[in-house]
This record gives sequence, C-alpha cells and structure tokens, in this order.
Amino acid sequence: MAFRASVLTLYPEMFPGHLGFSLAGKAMERGQWSLDAVQIRDFATDKHRTVDDTPAGGGAGMVLKPDVLARAIDSTSENDARPRLLMSPRGRPLTQERVRELASGDGIIIVCGRFEGVDQRVIEARGLEEVSIGDYVLSGGEPAALILLDAIIRILPGVMGNDLSGLHESFEGGLLEHPHYTRPQAWEGREIPSILTSGNHGAIDKWRYEEAVRLTRERRPDLFERAKAEKSG
Amino acid sequence: MAFRASVLTLYPEMFPGHLGFSLAGKAMERGQWSLDAVQIRDFATDKHRTVDDTPAGGGAGMVLKPDVLARAIDSTSENDARPRLLMSPRGRPLTQERVRELASGDGIIIVCGRFEGVDQRVIEARGLEEVSIGDYVLSGGEPAALILLDAIIRILPGVMGNDLSGLHESFEGGLLEHPHYTRPQAWEGREIPSILTSGNHGAIDKWRYEEAVRLTRERRPDLFERAKAEKSG
Repeated sequence: MAFRASVLTLYPEMFPGHLGFSLAGKAMERGQWSLDAVQIRDFATDKHRTVDDTPAGGGAGMVLKPDVLARAIDSTSENDARPRLLMSPRGRPLTQERVRELASGDGIIIVCGRFEGVDQRVIEARGLEEVSIGDYVLSGGEPAALILLDAIIRILPGVMGNDLSGLHESFEGGLLEHPHYTRPQAWEGREIPSILTSGNHGAIDKWRYEEAVRLTRERRPDLFERAKAEKSG
Repeated sequence: MAFRASVLTLYPEMFPGHLGFSLAGKAMERGQWSLDAVQIRDFATDKHRTVDDTPAGGGAGMVLKPDVLARAIDSTSENDARPRLLMSPRGRPLTQERVRELASGDGIIIVCGRFEGVDQRVIEARGLEEVSIGDYVLSGGEPAALILLDAIIRILPGVMGNDLSGLHESFEGGLLEHPHYTRPQAWEGREIPSILTSGNHGAIDKWRYEEAVRLTRERRPDLFERAKAEKSG
C-alpha cells in the first residue's frame, strides 16, 4: 500500500511545494506516495470562519482554537492508525531513526501550527506528537512538514533510483560523511588527495573513516561522543 | 536595501516554493526581499551539460564537479560580499543566532548539493560555509535552503505584521515555549488552567516561566543545561 500523507494547514496551497518535483514528484506520479492538504478553516462553524483567538492569560499572537482543529483532525483520521504529528519548535528533535520508523508505516497525519501556537488541550486530547526539525523559528509548521515528508519519501521502497547511495550518508552510521572529490584530477592548482586515486581500497576506506571521525569531532562533538559511546557500549 | 537571496541549484523550479505564499510571499511582492534561482547546469561546458562525475576512490552516488559549480558561484557573486552557504548534513547546525546574523546582512548565496555531495576543493576555494538544518537526511539541499530562507525572511524588518509576536517564541530566550490556551473555557471536559483566567499577571508570568522550564528540562535537557549555564554565567 502506498504511503499516505495528510497535512492539516491554513495554507494548503503550499503543498506539495518542492515535493512536486524531482525524486518525490516522480514517486508521487508513480503512486508510491500520496498527499492531501486539508484546509483547517473549512472546519470553523461561525460565519467569519474563525480559526484562532487571543491567548488565555494575555500576550501577543493568536492561538489555534481546540474545537476547530479537533474537528479537522477527526474528519481526516476516522478509524485511522496513522501517527499524528504536530510540527512545533517545542517538539522533540527529529532524528533519522524516527524518519525510518515513520517511513515503514502506512502514512502520517501532520498538523501545521501557525500564529503563536495551538491550544494545549487538543494536543493532549488527540495525542499529537510534537516534533521539531531544528532550533530556529519558522513562519509556521508548513515548511517543517515539507522537510519531514522529504526525509520520509526518499527512503520509501523504490523511490531512490540507486538504493545503495542511501547507505553511506551522514548520520546513517553516527558520523558525518567524509569529503568527496571527483574529476578533474587537478583544479585551480588543487589536487585530489593521492590516496583516493591509489587503487588501494583498504587505504581508501581507512582514510575516509579517519576523515569522518575528524570532521565529526571538529564540527559535532555531540555526535562524536554518542558514536564513541555506542561503539564501546 | 532589500535582502537579496541567490540560490544555486539543479532544480530552480523548486523556488520560491512555499516562500511564494503567506508572510514571505507578501513580503516578496512588497519588494522586502528577492530571490533568484540559478541553474548550475547552465555552467557546464560539454555538449551533455555534465554537472557530476563518479567519486574519486570509488563508491556509490555522484559528486558535483568543482569546475562547473565554481563557475556558477563566480557568475553569481562577482564583487559580492554576501555570505556563501552550502546546505549539507555535514555542516554546523543552524541556530536562531546565525539566522539573526544573516538577516541583518544584505543577502545570502546558497549552494544546494544533490547526489552524493560536492567536490571538497570548491568548498575550500570558494569559502563555502557548510550549514545543516538537522540530523536527518534530505533528498537534496533545496528543501533545506527553503527552511533557511523562511527563518531569515520572517525576521526581516517590516515582514511580520505584529512585531511583538516574534519576541516570546521558542529559543529566543533559550527555553522552549510554555503551553497555550484559548477559548472556549471548557472543551471536551477540559478547562483552561484557572491561573490563566485569574487576571493576576504576576502569577501568570510565574506559571508560564515554570512551564517553560519544565518542558525544556523534560524534552530538551541539552537546551536546559545551556540556559542554566548562561543564567549563572
């Protein structure tokens, strides 16, 4: 069964966005995944189609109303076991491991927050899993939802042309990836490191591993410590 | 002067993507920022318009050629002091602080990697700053570039309708944001916490701060330790 994504948003016109092109776009045309973007505003019941209100306790911004959002969720997910995610800077950081878990399922329901936030009661009552794609602030949940979907779609069965090229990428082994080189052999006076053109595959693997360790230690001491602990653990 | 973004990519059709709508789209129409998407392939010189080649030392995937990419960068950035970023899972993690720095400048040049990666020599020779938006693997640099631009654009002067609503968001103070509530007062048997409707602003501020601390400690021990160190430091 193809992977089914439902996105609840106030800006359905933002979807499929960049997912309509290249790898993800072709996979969608082949029916390997599908996307429906649901307009939350369609579930407002007053004549102004109100979806938000001022925060209880005061303060700037507006909060998405629990009743409207819950109706939108319920209409999308009746008898539906797909995980329900809320893109939010308050969420747990997205990892490649969680991406793999989600990609192995039937699909996903993604709620995109806008304004100041979403009423806490609907998060609890509808069991929304809050997920963050990083420690920066976005205009809303939509760009984050597109990132999550991009990460999932590329590893769905049959989507990548060359299944091997997914294996050696950053994080998949807990270390950052080694540097890459390709022809020409000399460019602006810079040469490809001679070991890479030596034909000695043992030496090449060793060089790549050492470079991955060096880069990870230098740029991401957090990942380096985790990789070390896992290796010795 | 308006903020100028140039994006070097093999998929210019992915831009402006979701940035053409809502907040960012309206700001673009008002001339508060501009975007040009440059096709890297236009800088190939052979009749097949080749942009990539096999990795030196062997292995899966393809590597973007240094000569072609350098020509694309040079054509875009002659006499141009804008920072040059390469979206890459090997990069340093993007932070809100770096977003603010970039937003305070004249603009940005973003290189989007595809395939297995980019020849290391062009990264060094053209001073590309490698930036990662998170610890997961994407189909390419394009979705990441759209995230970086979204984060920058929302804080450009005059872009947000209500300038206040940017102040109390997650990370801006080193803690995750407290929960939000709005009307109705009772929903599915769940009440807004009574303190938020008490009118006691001191007590509301204290509750919100304590909730922010609790959430941060629970979900993001890394941020919690940093916030504690900064407070005592």
